[in-house]
Amino acid sequence: MEDLIKKIKSSIPLSLEAEEYLISISKEKIVPKGSILIRQGQIVNKIFFVTGGCLRSYCIDKSGKEHTLHFAIKDNWISDYIAIHGDEPATLTIECLTESNIIEFNAKELDGMLTRFPELEPFQRGNLERLFVSLQKRILNQLQLSAAERYDLFLEQYGDVARQIPNYHIASFLGITQESLSRIRVKIANK
Amino acid sequence: MEDLIKKIKSSIPLSLEAEEYLISISKEKIVPKGSILIRQGQIVNKIFFVTGGCLRSYCIDKSGKEHTLHFAIKDNWISDYIAIHGDEPATLTIECLTESNIIEFNAKELDGMLTRFPELEPFQRGNLERLFVSLQKRILNQLQLSAAERYDLFLEQYGDVARQIPNYHIASFLGITQESLSRIRVKIANK
Repeated sequence: MEDLIKKIKSSIPLSLEAEEYLISISKEKIVPKGSILIRQGQIVNKIFFVTGGCLRSYCIDKSGKEHTLHFAIKDNWISDYIAIHGDEPATLTIECLTESNIIEFNAKELDGMLTRFPELEPFQRGNLERLFVSLQKRILNQLQLSAAERYDLFLEQYGDVARQIPNYHIASFLGITQESLSRIRVKIANK
Repeated sequence: MEDLIKKIKSSIPLSLEAEEYLISISKEKIVPKGSILIRQGQIVNKIFFVTGGCLRSYCIDKSGKEHTLHFAIKDNWISDYIAIHGDEPATLTIECLTESNIIEFNAKELDGMLTRFPELEPFQRGNLERLFVSLQKRILNQLQLSAAERYDLFLEQYGDVARQIPNYHIASFLGITQESLSRIRVKIANK
């Protein structure tokens, strides 16, 4: 929980009352590799803050193919926000790719905290603005960069964790086949 | 300006003081078709609220090809948020595809308004959450839907305005060639 409190305090002043309330609605957990935290089709009422490890959110299309939306590493939030804000069943499944340390929140309680402690609004606005910009960049990259350039950016962004993520998940994040990704990796290795 | 005030009031109570301040920092404009409001490479300090017409934001890649990030129609905001939040020159160009009615804001003044009138934070949070979710959906659609399915969604989302947007801009939004889009349109017409 310290990591999250530190992250908030680095951005805004946090009252002791708000800090205590945040702790009271949080559940710290260690979840084993392979755990499913949210499953496509189910009701979503949880949001997770990652303090260690790596999780991914993905959807399965009509033909059974997986498409990865997001990898969450230390200091990232992860949930199915499409379901939460659209008030619909989960579009996404969230699984732990490694043993992970997470802080679990009830989505309604976390949202209600912003009404109870409006001092937190600028922190949440900062989070949303950063997420919004990073998604816009991802769309532009998807439109204008080659698969090899997108893979380079992926390695930059996910650093050491990238080595722990299986190839087929990375391919499903980049929107390319596993074979294309293998060819890109061979080219990089032969440089 | 009435449209924007109405939109805000439908989501949160707005004090007369905040309303007057918002009006004082706004500039209503009618901009002719073809106008460039932001140009790639320049400093960005403006944000636009659209009350009529259609604008698009796009970037030009190394080979000179255009990629459309966003079409903004009535009740949408548009700017280069990557530049504003990353404090960097514009990645995007914003042009008017039709004569458009816009309300222009200075980005810093609009941002400062949230500090001056924290009552507006939940409204802005709602906007950002909706934008975040719509971008996530777009990425998932890009990963899992066929070009024809994405074009169908485009027509649904942009309705009548879609007919005023040239084919090559729609293709550059969908991430396909103009020829592919033409084939899709022929198939639809022959259905």
